Amino acid sequence: MFTMKVNDDISLKLLEQEDAKALFDLVDESRDYLREWLPWVDSMKQVADYEPIIEMWLKKFSEHDGYQAGILYKGKLAGMVGFHSVDWSNRKTTIGYWLAESYQGHGIMTAAVRALIDQAFTEYKLNRVEIYCGVGNEKSRAIPERLDLKQEGIIRDAEYLYDHYHDCALYRVLAREW
Amino acid sequence: MFTMKVNDDISLKLLEQEDAKALFDLVDESRDYLREWLPWVDSMKQVADYEPIIEMWLKKFSEHDGYQAGILYKGKLAGMVGFHSVDWSNRKTTIGYWLAESYQGHGIMTAAVRALIDQAFTEYKLNRVEIYCGVGNEKSRAIPERLDLKQEGIIRDAEYLYDHYHDCALYRVLAREW
Amino acid sequence: MFTMKVNDDISLKLLEQEDAKALFDLVDESRDYLREWLPWVDSMKQVADYEPIIEMWLKKFSEHDGYQAGILYKGKLAGMVGFHSVDWSNRKTTIGYWLAESYQGHGIMTAAVRALIDQAFTEYKLNRVEIYCGVGNEKSRAIPERLDLKQEGIIRDAEYLYDHYHDCALYRVLAREW
Amino acid sequence: MFTMKVNDDISLKLLEQEDAKALFDLVDESRDYLREWLPWVDSMKQVADYEPIIEMWLKKFSEHDGYQAGILYKGKLAGMVGFHSVDWSNRKTTIGYWLAESYQGHGIMTAAVRALIDQAFTEYKLNRVEIYCGVGNEKSRAIPERLDLKQEGIIRDAEYLYDHYHDCALYRVLAREW
Amino acid sequence: MFTMKVNDDISLKLLEQEDAKALFDLVDESRDYLREWLPWVDSMKQVADYEPIIEMWLKKFSEHDGYQAGILYKGKLAGMVGFHSVDWSNRKTTIGYWLAESYQGHGIMTAAVRALIDQAFTEYKLNRVEIYCGVGNEKSRAIPERLDLKQEGIIRDAEYLYDHYHDCALYRVLAREW
Amino acid sequence: MFTMKVNDDISLKLLEQEDAKALFDLVDESRDYLREWLPWVDSMKQVADYEPIIEMWLKKFSEHDGYQAGILYKGKLAGMVGFHSVDWSNRKTTIGYWLAESYQGHGIMTAAVRALIDQAFTEYKLNRVEIYCGVGNEKSRAIPERLDLKQEGIIRDAEYLYDHYHDCALYRVLAREW
Repeated sequence: MFTMKVNDDISLKLLEQEDAKALFDLVDESRDYLREWLPWVDSMKQVADYEPIIEMWLKKFSEHDGYQAGILYKGKLAGMVGFHSVDWSNRKTTIGYWLAESYQGHGIMTAAVRALIDQAFTEYKLNRVEIYCGVGNEKSRAIPERLDLKQEGIIRDAEYLYDHYHDCALYRVLAREW
Repeated sequence: MFTMKVNDDISLKLLEQEDAKALFDLVDESRDYLREWLPWVDSMKQVADYEPIIEMWLKKFSEHDGYQAGILYKGKLAGMVGFHSVDWSNRKTTIGYWLAESYQGHGIMTAAVRALIDQAFTEYKLNRVEIYCGVGNEKSRAIPERLDLKQEGIIRDAEYLYDHYHDCALYRVLAREW
Repeated sequence: MFTMKVNDDISLKLLEQEDAKALFDLVDESRDYLREWLPWVDSMKQVADYEPIIEMWLKKFSEHDGYQAGILYKGKLAGMVGFHSVDWSNRKTTIGYWLAESYQGHGIMTAAVRALIDQAFTEYKLNRVEIYCGVGNEKSRAIPERLDLKQEGIIRDAEYLYDHYHDCALYRVLAREW
Repeated sequence: MFTMKVNDDISLKLLEQEDAKALFDLVDESRDYLREWLPWVDSMKQVADYEPIIEMWLKKFSEHDGYQAGILYKGKLAGMVGFHSVDWSNRKTTIGYWLAESYQGHGIMTAAVRALIDQAFTEYKLNRVEIYCGVGNEKSRAIPERLDLKQEGIIRDAEYLYDHYHDCALYRVLAREW
Repeated sequence: MFTMKVNDDISLKLLEQEDAKALFDLVDESRDYLREWLPWVDSMKQVADYEPIIEMWLKKFSEHDGYQAGILYKGKLAGMVGFHSVDWSNRKTTIGYWLAESYQGHGIMTAAVRALIDQAFTEYKLNRVEIYCGVGNEKSRAIPERLDLKQEGIIRDAEYLYDHYHDCALYRVLAREW
Repeated sequence: MFTMKVNDDISLKLLEQEDAKALFDLVDESRDYLREWLPWVDSMKQVADYEPIIEMWLKKFSEHDGYQAGILYKGKLAGMVGFHSVDWSNRKTTIGYWLAESYQGHGIMTAAVRALIDQAFTEYKLNRVEIYCGVGNEKSRAIPERLDLKQEGIIRDAEYLYDHYHDCALYRVLAREW
């Protein structure tokens, strides 16, 4: 398996078809918790629903257009993190992430996102990284705030979630600010 | 030809292959003026360079993913306006536009963008429309300001322009605000 | 919406996904009338059946290979007209059309087809336009005859209609004849 | 090699990449003769120009949409014959053909076209076969006339040939007439 | 239909959509016999299951990457033979085949495979032809042995057959050995 | 970057576009050495020649059909190793590899190939792994021999190398043998 080491406990794994079951199980255990902020939870009803998505994620990676990785904490799948896509003309990208409830509180996501920002500026030579967080999603907002990203504004009705729109805070960091 | 009427002087035309020459000529006459804010001007060196782009614009239209239209002022091509793409899950889109120098000062773009916002909310039932303007591009910023869009923030280094990044102001309007 | 004006009452609209319902309703009301000459009526059983077809029509338009437009009469969808495809090597095309029963008798189709022939020769610089009409379809044949197209022959068993073949009259007009 | 036997001297061969050279040579020897009625002769300048075309012909065959075959006369490539495409909804097709100058006068094409018409009605269960011939192309018109096809009309400006349009006679035969 | 003549009784036919029914029937009559060595027999449950496969076989032929042909014995479909694909860089290919039970014992397959090897070396100018046979499949192994191919080794667990792996003998012949 | 750790000195990296230059340089320094056994060396003339190939390798990975990885030795690119493709029906695959001259003699490839065989059986649950080595390529053959793979035969003229064919030894290991 191909991973990016974050620290002794945490690594990021490019998800392959073999991971579909673990991914399904992780989401399935945290449905109520995850669906509060993730719009796709309800539509993933069986292991096979992850197969075309895993292929699509890898295809984006193959096209040099971001990737989605599983977060392994002490070897167990705990959540996901990735670059949604890459705007090479303007050398910027957006990071998204989620963590299952039982893995909260270990600093996992802060470390993972820091590693992605490092990678964006060092390996991919990008200039700007963005993160969108639901305004009321305190756990999510804590990540860019801990990493000292700047908040650039509140994006009204940025996302639709099952039956309502919600606002997002937009955070950014530039290569020269990191 | 297929057009959307804006007012007696202005209409929007879905550009077809037959328009490649007029588009090339319009940009070619205003190269210095347009390249100040548009990144693609230098790469369009001959009429044929517009052919794959026109096909790509129409293909996006055919996939229900925005469109790019020529702005006809008294029957002459004066600039372009369109929806870059449409995020149907979150029912939002972004409007982009440019106008040749010789057509400035007639309120053309304000009327055209107003028509697109109307269309976005009425015809496409979207919920949110965004416009990004270079911070120092006063003519561009005047459009959303005249139409009373809200500025949500300044997006640092939002675009790369030949040899430098520049910041953009992000404006938005929601269906319930229009 | 993008339209081509024919006269004060009539315009042609490039059909988009938003039009699927109106198109379904129009055909659904005239099923018995339309299926006499149109082979596809029975297979269109619900609104969603029009979605892939609308995308395919727009895709042909994006490839510069003809288009299918809705006919709006006083703002209401009344039928369709379009260029089936375009033979650019030989600069010729074929026009097809149908009108719902309740819109017959207003000269709608004659005006619409005249507009398409104008467009074929003026905008697209084609040399030849063809129309095929069922030999016994008097309403259909009246259109090219009123517009003074020449009949070139009777095409035996030109089309299969549910359970039988029928003959078509082939009409044509050349640019220099128009 | 895969062939369809016509008689002891004549067979039809599905052209494969190995045939590109023989095809180029045959056309190259008869350029002046063939270009009088065939629009593509001038654009075929080297053996490699036939490779994408042979693949495209075979691809149409693989999609059950007609084929193009080489005519072998006493084992030598003499010309081509084929079904341009097949309209399965209406169960009709069109036959096209050409023969190099030096193979004229042996009844080759009449036998080959008869075999294709047989195949269309017997093997493919089609209902109608068409042949278009340049009005002034007597050798070409002799084929459907010898085979007793009916002429349905003169198609004005049916084809563009380098610098002018020319008319075609349209011949047809139905399954029940054969 | 396009065939390659093997001898007076045997010819090879490029299978087209019209052959789906005959192919289904042949396999259906010999299910028990064929499934002993062929992994795909159980999954072919109706005539329509052969349609995408016939298209895929012809598509490979169109891409110059081998073909699958029906074996006609006295005009009846008796089995299949073909080149699985072609490695043009190394100029080698693999032959596969099967024969229905009722056609065994006439030397059909030996003649057919001999014709393919001839074709591989003469028409396609290949350098090496391989045949894999189940170690315990005596009828299959008799073909390369009768044709004097060399056995290069036993390939362990080469194929999976419903519920077990089985070994294959690998035979080869080079152009200079034929 | 995504890697698979082999031991403290060695890891395998999924090559991305950023690696094109390092890959070009590594091959460029060892052209004479590498071209003795690799057919593609001469055709790689500039960095950009690796870009479509890296995308194709990643695309195969995204389709769950093997991968090609760079071998990092003490952080430097030293060669490549990978699964050419995967036959999921029969659960088998083939490993290929090469190492630049200056990295020979450290046991790098033995360790890397051992890791891939582990991965094939443990992670991908395959049943059989094959390795082909040029008969005279002693360094290459030492790998499967050290890892105790069984030699199943000599494949005559298995590969074409610029101007001659050469024979390969075929090695295999089954899951139950590892």
